[in-house]
Amino acid sequence: MAGNSIGKIFQLTTYGESHAESIGGVIDGCPAGLSLDLEAVQHEMQRRKPGQSKIVTQRKEEDEVAFLSGIFEGVTTGTPIGFQIPNEDHKSKDYDHIKDVYRPNHGDFTYQEKYGVRDYRGGGRYSARETACRVVGGAVAQQILDKEGIRIDSYVSQVGLIKLDKCHEDMDLGTIDDNIVRCPDPELAEQMIARIEEVRKEGDTIGGVVTGIIQGLPVGLGEPVFDKLHADLGKAMLSINAAKGFDCGWAFAGLGMKGSEFNDAFVSEDGNITTKSNYSGGVQAGISNGRDIYFQVVFKPVSTIMQKQMTVNTDGEEVEIEGRGRHDPCVLPRAVPIVDAMAALVMVDHLLRSRTTKL
Amino acid sequence: MAGNSIGKIFQLTTYGESHAESIGGVIDGCPAGLSLDLEAVQHEMQRRKPGQSKIVTQRKEEDEVAFLSGIFEGVTTGTPIGFQIPNEDHKSKDYDHIKDVYRPNHGDFTYQEKYGVRDYRGGGRYSARETACRVVGGAVAQQILDKEGIRIDSYVSQVGLIKLDKCHEDMDLGTIDDNIVRCPDPELAEQMIARIEEVRKEGDTIGGVVTGIIQGLPVGLGEPVFDKLHADLGKAMLSINAAKGFDCGWAFAGLGMKGSEFNDAFVSEDGNITTKSNYSGGVQAGISNGRDIYFQVVFKPVSTIMQKQMTVNTDGEEVEIEGRGRHDPCVLPRAVPIVDAMAALVMVDHLLRSRTTKL
Amino acid sequence: MAGNSIGKIFQLTTYGESHAESIGGVIDGCPAGLSLDLEAVQHEMQRRKPGQSKIVTQRKEEDEVAFLSGIFEGVTTGTPIGFQIPNEDHKSKDYDHIKDVYRPNHGDFTYQEKYGVRDYRGGGRYSARETACRVVGGAVAQQILDKEGIRIDSYVSQVGLIKLDKCHEDMDLGTIDDNIVRCPDPELAEQMIARIEEVRKEGDTIGGVVTGIIQGLPVGLGEPVFDKLHADLGKAMLSINAAKGFDCGWAFAGLGMKGSEFNDAFVSEDGNITTKSNYSGGVQAGISNGRDIYFQVVFKPVSTIMQKQMTVNTDGEEVEIEGRGRHDPCVLPRAVPIVDAMAALVMVDHLLRSRTTKL
Amino acid sequence: MAGNSIGKIFQLTTYGESHAESIGGVIDGCPAGLSLDLEAVQHEMQRRKPGQSKIVTQRKEEDEVAFLSGIFEGVTTGTPIGFQIPNEDHKSKDYDHIKDVYRPNHGDFTYQEKYGVRDYRGGGRYSARETACRVVGGAVAQQILDKEGIRIDSYVSQVGLIKLDKCHEDMDLGTIDDNIVRCPDPELAEQMIARIEEVRKEGDTIGGVVTGIIQGLPVGLGEPVFDKLHADLGKAMLSINAAKGFDCGWAFAGLGMKGSEFNDAFVSEDGNITTKSNYSGGVQAGISNGRDIYFQVVFKPVSTIMQKQMTVNTDGEEVEIEGRGRHDPCVLPRAVPIVDAMAALVMVDHLLRSRTTKL
Repeated sequence: MAGNSIGKIFQLTTYGESHAESIGGVIDGCPAGLSLDLEAVQHEMQRRKPGQSKIVTQRKEEDEVAFLSGIFEGVTTGTPIGFQIPNEDHKSKDYDHIKDVYRPNHGDFTYQEKYGVRDYRGGGRYSARETACRVVGGAVAQQILDKEGIRIDSYVSQVGLIKLDKCHEDMDLGTIDDNIVRCPDPELAEQMIARIEEVRKEGDTIGGVVTGIIQGLPVGLGEPVFDKLHADLGKAMLSINAAKGFDCGWAFAGLGMKGSEFNDAFVSEDGNITTKSNYSGGVQAGISNGRDIYFQVVFKPVSTIMQKQMTVNTDGEEVEIEGRGRHDPCVLPRAVPIVDAMAALVMVDHLLRSRTTKL
Repeated sequence: MAGNSIGKIFQLTTYGESHAESIGGVIDGCPAGLSLDLEAVQHEMQRRKPGQSKIVTQRKEEDEVAFLSGIFEGVTTGTPIGFQIPNEDHKSKDYDHIKDVYRPNHGDFTYQEKYGVRDYRGGGRYSARETACRVVGGAVAQQILDKEGIRIDSYVSQVGLIKLDKCHEDMDLGTIDDNIVRCPDPELAEQMIARIEEVRKEGDTIGGVVTGIIQGLPVGLGEPVFDKLHADLGKAMLSINAAKGFDCGWAFAGLGMKGSEFNDAFVSEDGNITTKSNYSGGVQAGISNGRDIYFQVVFKPVSTIMQKQMTVNTDGEEVEIEGRGRHDPCVLPRAVPIVDAMAALVMVDHLLRSRTTKL
Repeated sequence: MAGNSIGKIFQLTTYGESHAESIGGVIDGCPAGLSLDLEAVQHEMQRRKPGQSKIVTQRKEEDEVAFLSGIFEGVTTGTPIGFQIPNEDHKSKDYDHIKDVYRPNHGDFTYQEKYGVRDYRGGGRYSARETACRVVGGAVAQQILDKEGIRIDSYVSQVGLIKLDKCHEDMDLGTIDDNIVRCPDPELAEQMIARIEEVRKEGDTIGGVVTGIIQGLPVGLGEPVFDKLHADLGKAMLSINAAKGFDCGWAFAGLGMKGSEFNDAFVSEDGNITTKSNYSGGVQAGISNGRDIYFQVVFKPVSTIMQKQMTVNTDGEEVEIEGRGRHDPCVLPRAVPIVDAMAALVMVDHLLRSRTTKL
Repeated sequence: MAGNSIGKIFQLTTYGESHAESIGGVIDGCPAGLSLDLEAVQHEMQRRKPGQSKIVTQRKEEDEVAFLSGIFEGVTTGTPIGFQIPNEDHKSKDYDHIKDVYRPNHGDFTYQEKYGVRDYRGGGRYSARETACRVVGGAVAQQILDKEGIRIDSYVSQVGLIKLDKCHEDMDLGTIDDNIVRCPDPELAEQMIARIEEVRKEGDTIGGVVTGIIQGLPVGLGEPVFDKLHADLGKAMLSINAAKGFDCGWAFAGLGMKGSEFNDAFVSEDGNITTKSNYSGGVQAGISNGRDIYFQVVFKPVSTIMQKQMTVNTDGEEVEIEGRGRHDPCVLPRAVPIVDAMAALVMVDHLLRSRTTKL
């Protein structure tokens, strides 16, 4: 109800602000019997953590996750999995200057108005720090998907107006992490990196698009009528900090198409029914049809910029503000593992939900 | 869990297939004491119903909603509101030819695979007929929003590549219903209508965009971190039949912008804090900031076309299929009241949720 | 949230007041592929309906349930099952005399205070009429349990102080319906019937106990720590009109026992582990252990009596009131199918939930 | 879904086994603006902790709770409150002897069968250790109730067959903690303590009853029809380890009463409508009527006894087992703060839910 849980069967609940001692959460509904690969979880944490390259924030956070319950001798027991990530690098004093100021596009104002109180240090609950818990949950979820041969790969497909125009089938998704911007097209990656560097030097920030690919999904995931697979996926993506848009299949891109062009003809291949084209993006009538799901998530530019901006303080008086500290000029490279995680959470939840569909 | 309910406090649960005797549902959590304006509900039903103009399906459905409970002497009692809409115009025989065929882009294949059984008549549960129940729920929800001065207006902003480039503030939203395509720009409306007519004559279909505007919302709606206001709104929109994309504020449109351009500076106006620009679309950190919410929903072209298409039957054999009956060449004009309804459902739910935020 | 739904996977939502045109509801999450035996559903309705014997209310209600969706050619399709039961025998005028009066122990006062408005006719939403919808849901649930060999039998085990002291294993549960009070001990049944008749002639009412027996349940149903099987069962029972107490296994009855007496020793039988005694009532640590579940539900005396009582009107003035119309002197015989239904709803929900426990 | 959360608005989710490093949880939905009294929380922890008297287990656990989020400068911020309690006194080797044995009436067998794996050390998730997290949640909830003048007092009312026959109104509930058994009748308390000592010396255990009293509750809490106030309360109580029975008002005790005796006549007192008697126990039609709620929870004898018992091992072979370590001869004195906590959780949840009832 208060919005800190996601999923109906495989359910992640998180807590934590950026400047408390720790953040963490509970994964409830993880099936028993999974030999949890802790290194794989930690690997995803590394992909999200600050300081990993020159185009992301230079803050240092180790982000070592500790699992506190629900695992016995390396195997999940079916009971809730508590976990915790210590917060490091506390510099609460860094935030005294924003205590009484509403930073543009941050949650300072809306949280203050909503709750009448806020933890202003580092963005509190609305800090992207919170997404570390999503990555933990998603990395556990992914290990269940692995058993079913379901693979999720996200990558940066647009930075500002620099846009990747290749289909995922025409690239090697195994190369996503080969460059620091996480775009599987090496040439475009160079351009993207250059663009982010350029913007960073201006003290500015930039947004873009992360594309997600889900392969190996069985037919039949998704629930009519409100919990369509792409609706739940969309909600999960739109809940990520700075995400403002989502589409699945050819949506914004396919606006000029007619039904006769957009319809994916069914064909029979090796005794299995599939579709010739895949404009639908793997989802029809809200249910997976066995084809690859591809979706896009639009991220706005990071709100904290290293330039002077006018804003108001909590008394409504005009004040000038300038970003301090170490911030991301572009959220996209670090958003990739978060998109992976949210997709994994939604897919494993629907996978488990689908177990109750038939007699 | 099975996906036929939406909302946490104000909750709509629906049932029904296109060819049963009736469809209907239950609205649970509607506050007591609302003098329900039944004509206003019926008015929304008229906006959604088939046969209302030459650019939509010519099917005849009266769509008279009957309220069965939860209302006493015209006032809601706080108990669940059951409602029912009779299905008319049954022609189940019309569907014998698709009994064993998977129509492209319909749910025939995915439902059959998911459930092992399906009601193939008229699309069964995945027929857009189901959206009539959403309109009932939304029309009740809107009456609560009315009391708070919250207004929702949706309109068609793009048909194929014909795109409205005006901001909602530069148009009279009171004129949306003045033309049959429901675009508040009369000139562009003519072009859109002509385009739909053209496509219809080809036996084809076309998609587009519905833009939604929410005005008068108080600051503070939306819940961190997974139930951000635009995330719940996005899910609601993506759950509408044929919806494939969603964005809120300047998302896809703002991809070239830098943080310094995108940030909405806070200003003080008449003692109230607000923002100068509104690229965020009325939502910051997932919570309404008092500015207008504007969002876009992308609809794919209608799947049923009046042209021959190749597909397979349930045995996987290639067959030719051709649309019959009366279908929409473009879903957008009739989608407008559905977008209104889904937005109202999400807003009233968050409005009620916000009552429990503070001590 | 507003309390008109029960179940997490197999979910029943109901609507309806006693004097509207109909009551009904939606069963969501019923697995696809069940050949629904409509007569079996109707049979349970007959067991609950008024007028079936001299010791229950003589009101006439046919209680014919109509299924509106979710069933195609006799088989459940996995989509929501809407259903409706017409209300007959409207005599709203009968209730004018209680319009402004708070009947003792009815919901008149609490509903009026809670909602500020109430449908006073026949008890509105707090009428036991509502339980007819529970019986529909339970009768569908039971058909799923039948496939798994799970059998539920409830019977009247106490009327006033007349108490059955036999264990369910020492009686033939197939004879429950052989007498009008629904007690499988024919001699005691006669005493119970005589007691109810006696009380009825006094214009008074009496309470008692319904015992429920669940046989054939697999080991492993129930979820730690809040959704223990007997906790969910207890809630379901306590939600029935007039139910005030619940226990499972030897609880109230076993208060004198020590641990050494109460503990059910594990033994091995034909290669299966089971327990020698069954004081636990089939549930250990909140999870079914394969032994029979037995539980008791205490019902208070019916509130409407055919005697003069003092009470107050809505203005707080003392007034005298006397029951009119046709009411049950004892709710127990008609409560039996409701207890069956609620038990079936809880068991099928946990059965489906248990499908997601292991990898 | 997996059963480790309770509450719909004020929601507690817990994790943890008895022998991991810590147990803990997340309280989501706690309203912002509460000045949290941490000492009051810790006080409740002390009431539950082992080793507090000679009639409870002599295990040492400090049970210091650490709050990790959701509180800023001593005030709740409306964001989730994470908390943690370190586990001390690890002696996992103590449990090697039960690794392959199913202890009678413990969850060893049902958990093993349900999950295929279990953490056998100290009962794992089904250890009463878990209830410490309930006390944290309840102690926070109680502080909200305090603001509304709602008071909850539980006490031991029966140990074995030694039964308190006084009404709560005839005792001073401020004296509950004055004796180690937590019974507000000092004479009976002595008898209860003697009885527990006696049983403990036999190496045996004994059960009994905790009575709960809720005073100051406003009229109108509880939701029709499935979430009746006493139904939710009953579920919460039955979910406590070793709880097997529940009733509210005169249920089991009132079985001989007729309607004319049981009905609580409405009267007007100082302009307020109330009832003369209170056999209903403060709840009518599932909704609080402003009178004191009183309820009883039956606890079975503790399963671990210091006597030899026969059981089977995981291979189904007969083995002899004998309790070791430090266990409670009677769970009741330490159950009192847990009953308080669960009652507070249910009441605050319904209090918040009631904020959305009216327009």
